[in-house]
Order: sequence, then structure tokens, then C-alpha cells
Amino acid sequence: MPVNLEKFQAALRYEFRDYRHLQLALRHRSVGSDNNERLEFLGDSILNFCITEKLFEVRPNESEGELSRIRASLVNGESLAAIAEQLQLGHYIELGQGEQRSGGKQRKSILADAMEAVLGAVLRDGGFDVCRKLILELYQPLLLNLPSAEELKDPKTRLQELLQGRGEELPRYQVIAETGMDHQKQFEVNCLVAGVKSTMAIGSSRRKAEQLAAQKMLANLTNV
Amino acid sequence: MPVNLEKFQAALRYEFRDYRHLQLALRHRSVGSDNNERLEFLGDSILNFCITEKLFEVRPNESEGELSRIRASLVNGESLAAIAEQLQLGHYIELGQGEQRSGGKQRKSILADAMEAVLGAVLRDGGFDVCRKLILELYQPLLLNLPSAEELKDPKTRLQELLQGRGEELPRYQVIAETGMDHQKQFEVNCLVAGVKSTMAIGSSRRKAEQLAAQKMLANLTNV
Repeated sequence: MPVNLEKFQAALRYEFRDYRHLQLALRHRSVGSDNNERLEFLGDSILNFCITEKLFEVRPNESEGELSRIRASLVNGESLAAIAEQLQLGHYIELGQGEQRSGGKQRKSILADAMEAVLGAVLRDGGFDVCRKLILELYQPLLLNLPSAEELKDPKTRLQELLQGRGEELPRYQVIAETGMDHQKQFEVNCLVAGVKSTMAIGSSRRKAEQLAAQKMLANLTNV
Repeated sequence: MPVNLEKFQAALRYEFRDYRHLQLALRHRSVGSDNNERLEFLGDSILNFCITEKLFEVRPNESEGELSRIRASLVNGESLAAIAEQLQLGHYIELGQGEQRSGGKQRKSILADAMEAVLGAVLRDGGFDVCRKLILELYQPLLLNLPSAEELKDPKTRLQELLQGRGEELPRYQVIAETGMDHQKQFEVNCLVAGVKSTMAIGSSRRKAEQLAAQKMLANLTNV
């Protein structure tokens, strides 16, 4: 096996029986059709399951909606790229020339995808139990420091709950303007509370603009 | 254990060590806060993983996009409800009075959700290997009769590929009209091919209208 892959395996703390699994996981689609996309698909799925199962166990009192929000905060491109960076995965990724020149080895999406592919490769190479153990080890720092479900609520939900708690009417959202061409639309939205206060925000989708307006209203109402 | 649950376990071909897992899986949220939603969340995740892993193995030559489409054709409310109906799961579901009166035991979404919850309960009760084995047994008829990736392509993709194959220009889509209030918008879309043929369709979203228009164009071009 190429010596540099040994270094990666040491960082990963998993030694492949058949290192071709690992080689495939490190091969970006820019190299050709024999690439890591299938392994990424597989890795995404086992990662999702292992984290779900763990959260189910360690958070016995959270609703499924809360578990879902906590999971989304753990299983995403950002956290996968961070894990990949710790393992210096970027050094080992095989890229096509164009991607190499444009700095693909540092690109978060490429790192995150390859990290999932590595998990898929471990599953194929070592089986389910070994892969689950590795996933939980890699995620241990994040699992030890889980956010509360409350922290993860979106601004519209928090605003609604704040107003309900105060016995006030629910907020209303109005689209004031929709401008720009199809591919770069802008939505201007008002958030109205009890017909008195209003905050305005602009976003690239109605949903985003509403969340921003709700965020402003929250700051306004809680004087943050 | 209640005698009727024994009958269900026989149909499922799994005997619970702790039948409270099963009871919880059968309790719809209309009954109260101690319900099957957490188990459904867990079951959804293991189901997704086990089917993904199986497809990865039995379809070694499909791309991840193709695997994803095949998976979506297997893991969805329809197929889960069909499996639940085979097991007569509806007989055993515990519903609140309102849901009972409105025929909740036949509702597909309730059956599908409870089926996922039963899978989550088996995982909790019997562990991963047992649950995976059961999932593959339940899905065996569908796995033996997998659709091809080609059959599962959406109309826009198939139309694009048809035209590319003929060396023609790609189709264009135009929104002709957007009518109705926010919560019941209607989109009227034209599909244009080589500036000559056009088909029109209406849908509740731009995407749906485009797919319908592409479907009509496909029928038109292939004389189906």
C-alpha cells in the first residue's frame, strides 16, 4: 500500500484489510467515472443511522422533532469537513487537474463528501459494528457537547413560542416585494406582532426573509 | 401480553423480549405524549440504511443518483403502508378518539409511520442484526422486483436525454402565469422544444408544472 495511506489510516485509527476500498473513497469524481460517489451515498446513510441511534439513547426525553434538529446540527457538511480536516484528509484526496488547480483539496464540500465515502469504505471493509464504533469515536467530541434542542430552534419557532408564552397573538408575515429575475430573486418580508411592531428583512427566498425578520423581531422584543 | 399482539408478532415473524417496545410503536400521537414518534424517527433511519446497503450490494454498477432514485421508490409512505397492510397493522394501532372516528386505522400515513415505529421497536428490542434481517425479509418482494434506474427518471430528465440523443437543442420551460393566493398557487408552464413544439401544463408548483409539461412533450415526441 502507498505509504501515505498508512499515515491516513493511523490518523483514522482504522486499518483497511483491502486498501482499495480506501483508495476508491479518496477518488473525487473529477478523476473519472470510477470515483467515490457510491461510497459517499453509503457512508451518508450509515452515518445518519448511527447518529440517530445514539441520540435516541442519550436523549430519552426529546421529541422526534428535537432529535431531528440535533441530528442536523451534527450531520452536515460543516462538521464532516471539520472531522476531515482533523484527519488531514485533504492531503490524500485524488482530484482531477481542474479541481486541483482551483484548490479543491481545501473545499469543504469535497472534504465532507470524501469523509462520508471513507465511512462507506470502512463499512464495506470492516462491517457494520466496526464502522459504527469508528463513527461514534469520530463524533465523540460533538456528542459530548450536544446543543440543547432549544438552542437549535429557528427564529420563527422561537418567536411564536415567546408570544404564546406571553399570551399574545401570533406573528404575521407579509411579502412586501418580490424583485429580481428567476435565478436571483429577492424577497422583502414584514414581520408584524400584534399589529404594532414590525421588522423588515430581505432574503433570497421567502422562507429566509421570514426567518431574518423573525430574528430581528426577537432581538427587538427581548432587547438583545 | 395482550393476546392480539401475539397474533401481530406471528405475522411480523418477530417475538419481542419486552413487548412494551411494541406497544409504544403502536401508539399514535393522537393518544397522548407517550407515543410512537421517537421510534418512528429511529425506524426511518435504520430502514433507510439497510435498504441503502442492500442496493449498494445488489446494484454494483448503478451511480449514486440511480441508487438514490431506486431507494426512493422502495422507502416511501406507499410501500411502507402496503407492508403494514399485509401485516394487518391497522388492527393493532392505538388511536385517539378523533382519529378513530375519522378512519385513522386505514390512513396510509398513519400505517406507514407505525410501520417505521415497529422497525424502531425491533431495533431497540432485538438489536441491529435482528432488525436488519427483518427489514430485508419484509422488503424481499420489492427487492426481488427492483425497477431499473431508467424507469425511475423524472420526465424532465428523460426528455432532456431523448433530445440529446437525437442531437437536438435542450427544451426550455417558461412560466406563463402564476395565479391564486399564497397557499393555493397555480403555475402555468410551457415546455418548448426547438422553438417548434410546445406543451402546456398547470401545477401547484413550478417544478410540478414543468414535469407535467415535459411528460406531455415526451408523449408527443414518442407518440405514446
